[in-house]
Amino acid sequence: MPVNHQILLDNRPVGQAQTSNFKAVTSETAALQDGQVLVRHHYLSLDPYMRGRMNDAKSYAQPQPLGQTMQGGTVGEVVASRHPRFAVGDKVVGMGGWQEYSVADATQVGALRKVDTTHIPLSAYLGAVGMPGVTAWYGLVKICQPQPGHTMVVSAAAGAVGSAFGALSKARGCRTVGIAGGPDKCAYAVDELGFDACIDYKLYDNAHSLSKALAAVCPDGIDGYFENVGGMVLDAVMPRMNAFGRIAVCGMIAGYDGAPLPMSYPALILMQRLLVQGFIVSEHMEVWPEALAELGALVASGKLRARESVAQGLAAAPEAFLGLLKGKNFGKQLVKLI
Amino acid sequence: MPVNHQILLDNRPVGQAQTSNFKAVTSETAALQDGQVLVRHHYLSLDPYMRGRMNDAKSYAQPQPLGQTMQGGTVGEVVASRHPRFAVGDKVVGMGGWQEYSVADATQVGALRKVDTTHIPLSAYLGAVGMPGVTAWYGLVKICQPQPGHTMVVSAAAGAVGSAFGALSKARGCRTVGIAGGPDKCAYAVDELGFDACIDYKLYDNAHSLSKALAAVCPDGIDGYFENVGGMVLDAVMPRMNAFGRIAVCGMIAGYDGAPLPMSYPALILMQRLLVQGFIVSEHMEVWPEALAELGALVASGKLRARESVAQGLAAAPEAFLGLLKGKNFGKQLVKLI
Repeated sequence: MPVNHQILLDNRPVGQAQTSNFKAVTSETAALQDGQVLVRHHYLSLDPYMRGRMNDAKSYAQPQPLGQTMQGGTVGEVVASRHPRFAVGDKVVGMGGWQEYSVADATQVGALRKVDTTHIPLSAYLGAVGMPGVTAWYGLVKICQPQPGHTMVVSAAAGAVGSAFGALSKARGCRTVGIAGGPDKCAYAVDELGFDACIDYKLYDNAHSLSKALAAVCPDGIDGYFENVGGMVLDAVMPRMNAFGRIAVCGMIAGYDGAPLPMSYPALILMQRLLVQGFIVSEHMEVWPEALAELGALVASGKLRARESVAQGLAAAPEAFLGLLKGKNFGKQLVKLI
Repeated sequence: MPVNHQILLDNRPVGQAQTSNFKAVTSETAALQDGQVLVRHHYLSLDPYMRGRMNDAKSYAQPQPLGQTMQGGTVGEVVASRHPRFAVGDKVVGMGGWQEYSVADATQVGALRKVDTTHIPLSAYLGAVGMPGVTAWYGLVKICQPQPGHTMVVSAAAGAVGSAFGALSKARGCRTVGIAGGPDKCAYAVDELGFDACIDYKLYDNAHSLSKALAAVCPDGIDGYFENVGGMVLDAVMPRMNAFGRIAVCGMIAGYDGAPLPMSYPALILMQRLLVQGFIVSEHMEVWPEALAELGALVASGKLRARESVAQGLAAAPEAFLGLLKGKNFGKQLVKLI
């Protein structure tokens, strides 16, 4: 069996996550049992939710166990199979974790899914046509409930979720405005993703001035907001929400590493009769087929040109992950393993 | 025509509202036109929402105009009518405002509603069987969506809305917990209203200790929360919310008079996949008949024994209103005019 390089969670962060929280180890992959499949990973997905799981605190997911391989989404190729539905050479998406190989129990529903790479690159199944894309779809369609002519806003607009949100929102006839960090990300959002406007939040040092900038590009107010960030950005968006506006809370990355960030003006929820709803896409598996079909078509037709930041080699994963938490990535953050 | 005493909004509050914001005047009621009805008010309703309307700021309602009679709900008796559906002696509920008499345009849908006082006292139509009752009903039924065995919590539990919420929640088989200010209100909530428990928030000087007290009386967590208060109470409730919990935001009275109060832990909305929704009951007229039917039955059968704080005479209205904002009332705050 092949030698397998792995990255474990060695200890939990106190405040900011650090590379010393992780530990690289080497093992040999186990021999396959009946129903199991050995997958060689081509790409590992890095996602903000992983930061929450590094803590021991109560959260929506169980904490990542110490001393075990970091969990995470992977795409790869079957290199050995003892399951009749999977053959050597099949391209598959699964939750293989931060390692070069994984043994999947293919008898478990949803553990391993074969994908077609004719029109869609394999890595996209970790981004626009994967969990981040479905996340955008759920927040937009099920929570924000856009109507043609509505104004939809998303923070972290150039990220894996934000870019999919933009394409899905434009496809529904909405004015679509992004918030992102830096002129390059904002130019990408407008020029390549088709956002109507994108605000660089780094140009503003308080919620009030950021809110004024938003007002200028949202002349009819904001009907739906997809929150990835929290903190100052949320405080800037809320005063621009129209009556009966809807806010999908997907992430609050600004507060993941430090003290909890407050919402400054919750009374606006009452005054504007807002709906604010948190969600986790893995709890809504029923929407995945519909969402993936739409996202796949957008990618295959070139209407969703999602960018990727690709780190090379498993050893680069911890540094790339910490960079993601600071917004250093541009689009979907991946680690290429082969 | 009779002489009419009225109270106007004379100037807008800066910070705390004061009696000097109001002004008493006397006029003669106008002669009736066709379709109009002259009502002598028996009771005037005082409600927290009036504080928001005293400001000039953007809110859900138009500001109360300066120099005009304070608007508000009233019940009374028809003393003259030029509308065929209303006769002298009819008991009616309307929006007569802070004055002894009002001329209502009965041709306007919903302006004046005849009520039956056989089993329900007239004043209840301003409380349990009126706007506050329907407010409780909407927040509970439409937003919190209780199931038997759920735990429902309401702040300002001894108030007009909170007391109705308690009866409606108990009728649905929910564990029902109140939060109120002071031992008398808490005893009333448990002994007379049937709450399973009531926490006196004045015993706690921070959200953390209040939250621990809540945990003790909500052993299965909180599934639905009806918010009248905001601030420390909201911060104490949120960490106790169960996954997929629902929060109806009806009021944030703790912040009405001063600086906006933040929500300290908005990340809980994500972590627990909460739904938080603001609402104004007057925008949901479609539920009023169903809600009033249930509330009327609860009051008539003695299952909802709502208390009233009654101020005597129109001149007492400003002081009673300011007391309401400080929680000095016990149950529905009314002004008796006759």
